[in-house]
Amino acid sequence: MTFPVVGMVGGGQLARMTHEAGIPLGLKFKLLSDTPQDSAAQVVGDVVIGDYRDLETLRAFARGCDVITFDHEHVPYEHLRALEADGIPVRPGPEALVHAQDKGVMREKLTEIGAPCPRHRIVSDPADAAAFAEEVGGFPVILKTVRGGYDGKGVWFVRTPEDAEAPFKAGVAVLAEERVDFVRELAANIVRSPHGQAVAYPVVESQQVDGVCDTVIAPAPGLSDELAGQAQELALRIAKELGVVGHLAVELFETRDGRILVNELAMRPHNSGHWTQDGAVTSQFANHVRAVLDLPLGDPRPRAPWTVMCNVLGGDFPDMYSAYLHCMARDPQLKIHMYGKDVKPGRKVGHVNTYGDDLDDVLERARHAAGYLRGTITE
Amino acid sequence: MTFPVVGMVGGGQLARMTHEAGIPLGLKFKLLSDTPQDSAAQVVGDVVIGDYRDLETLRAFARGCDVITFDHEHVPYEHLRALEADGIPVRPGPEALVHAQDKGVMREKLTEIGAPCPRHRIVSDPADAAAFAEEVGGFPVILKTVRGGYDGKGVWFVRTPEDAEAPFKAGVAVLAEERVDFVRELAANIVRSPHGQAVAYPVVESQQVDGVCDTVIAPAPGLSDELAGQAQELALRIAKELGVVGHLAVELFETRDGRILVNELAMRPHNSGHWTQDGAVTSQFANHVRAVLDLPLGDPRPRAPWTVMCNVLGGDFPDMYSAYLHCMARDPQLKIHMYGKDVKPGRKVGHVNTYGDDLDDVLERARHAAGYLRGTITE
Repeated sequence: MTFPVVGMVGGGQLARMTHEAGIPLGLKFKLLSDTPQDSAAQVVGDVVIGDYRDLETLRAFARGCDVITFDHEHVPYEHLRALEADGIPVRPGPEALVHAQDKGVMREKLTEIGAPCPRHRIVSDPADAAAFAEEVGGFPVILKTVRGGYDGKGVWFVRTPEDAEAPFKAGVAVLAEERVDFVRELAANIVRSPHGQAVAYPVVESQQVDGVCDTVIAPAPGLSDELAGQAQELALRIAKELGVVGHLAVELFETRDGRILVNELAMRPHNSGHWTQDGAVTSQFANHVRAVLDLPLGDPRPRAPWTVMCNVLGGDFPDMYSAYLHCMARDPQLKIHMYGKDVKPGRKVGHVNTYGDDLDDVLERARHAAGYLRGTITE
Repeated sequence: MTFPVVGMVGGGQLARMTHEAGIPLGLKFKLLSDTPQDSAAQVVGDVVIGDYRDLETLRAFARGCDVITFDHEHVPYEHLRALEADGIPVRPGPEALVHAQDKGVMREKLTEIGAPCPRHRIVSDPADAAAFAEEVGGFPVILKTVRGGYDGKGVWFVRTPEDAEAPFKAGVAVLAEERVDFVRELAANIVRSPHGQAVAYPVVESQQVDGVCDTVIAPAPGLSDELAGQAQELALRIAKELGVVGHLAVELFETRDGRILVNELAMRPHNSGHWTQDGAVTSQFANHVRAVLDLPLGDPRPRAPWTVMCNVLGGDFPDMYSAYLHCMARDPQLKIHMYGKDVKPGRKVGHVNTYGDDLDDVLERARHAAGYLRGTITE
């Protein structure tokens, strides 16, 4: 076998950073992107512009690729099956991906394998949602469209029967979940290869603001070895049972009574793993690529006692470059990762990583830089 | 200022790795490459195929670039002057680059600023070379064409007057240098920005085989703080006096009597700095880009007690990818950097980095991987 061609479907920042991680491996990287302006399309040499929802586009793209992987989970299941039938390795495959595409399927499977979940069931209308609320001790409850949600979209925090009407308007099945009394959110990230090798990254704490990931701390401060081990084992078991290949992020709630419950799954490099670019021996992106090519996986251990990632969201100032001077001069150890996206208020346009021995210092530096780039901190 | 466009002239591995380092900074990267198969042209989105020796090609390329920098030092001085006259920032500029292009000019300038050099002078013919040998205590001496040499090419180790004939056949001026009684070779690498900020990497030991860099150890083992400090100060002074912007590698001899002498200069990212990709807080590539854009420089400090780089040369086996399984499985901490080049015996096609607390272990791992990829080690 000579150096393989990795076909990446989707032109977002995850594809951009996977390309970056693949360059040193000498891989040939081919991108299917919606537009030439997409984050990854700006930096990849071999780009096909096309619609991943069109099977013939996908098929034409896949010819000449040794493996297909993904920047997102939106490629229709039937199309993935068709590519597999054409003989193209699809990693993760459709039988695994469907669990990341459909929250109803995900909950059913997790329950089947005994993975701890919030109480949940599919609800058919607002009255049924109210009945579910009754079953779990009353409002508030969480309603989610089973498909198409991300970053807080497609998720409703429902306090009254009237609130329960909106989720049904999309015409997609609705999953109801109890509101979990959690102390914080965690993420257990692992990478698994087709031949079954797997590595587990340290469990991280993930802090959300308005439903969007804001800060990730690696490892999760004060997490007991026992709970960390449970979370890693759970993620490894989910990956194996669901047949995941590549990076799997298992987003978790840590409950007030010391349990972990699965919140969401993502079968691709994930925001909660961006810290690994500068904080781990092998980044999630490098290990994802190694996994989809069935190469031995790299060491997931941290390189520093603490690593912090803060997302950079768009603010009121469209030009973030001029903030570089201040940020780079203030902190020569700061690691900036920008996605080449136009700034829109609230849009994820980059992230920063910091690492070191003192968590307070590492946190302050990351938050300052992210705030300064966004424009919410001006000195 | 919005995110700038960095124009890179030359499509080799240095451009490839500079592009990789520029992706997280959100830069727009534009490449002038000889062919679409060149190392960097395989991975960059915005590639112009053309000949850097043609001024109109350079001019057309430079339009739309905010700054021009280089993968190599071969762009004619007059062309660089013409680009500057057009108003394009050229970094490093022609007045600095000429010292890396012409070894005669380099020796003259270094002597003028009092930098320690081997004894040397331009020689006009084989008889003059013999006369120079006489002046420095007899053969052997080193003869070098003042332009066009690299990796041992254009350099002759001359033992007899008859040996002295070959260098003159190229029709290029010839520089004679005494043979230095050195115990090892060192490199002092620094990065300097237009506004004069500079950072110095730890001084490294560079081991050559057949005139080609084989192994780099960071920091140089057993080097006294005094000599390390002298080497860093010397590199910083040369950069300032010559007006260098970007990465400067000063290759040095450490003499048996405890002095350092300048061997060569390179004004671009350099093989002796590849260890910084995995071994320093900020890589030479990231700092080179930050310097040419006049951004504050990143921390050059090492992240581990020892980092070792070994070059991967082409061997008898054209397919290196199949060796990945063994190398990655044997050492999950190994960092591979391949250049996407066809394998030819002796050609630099990649390098590996290893780091850790124990130098013997770090060295063994790097040498094993480089040897295995080349095919000289088979288990």
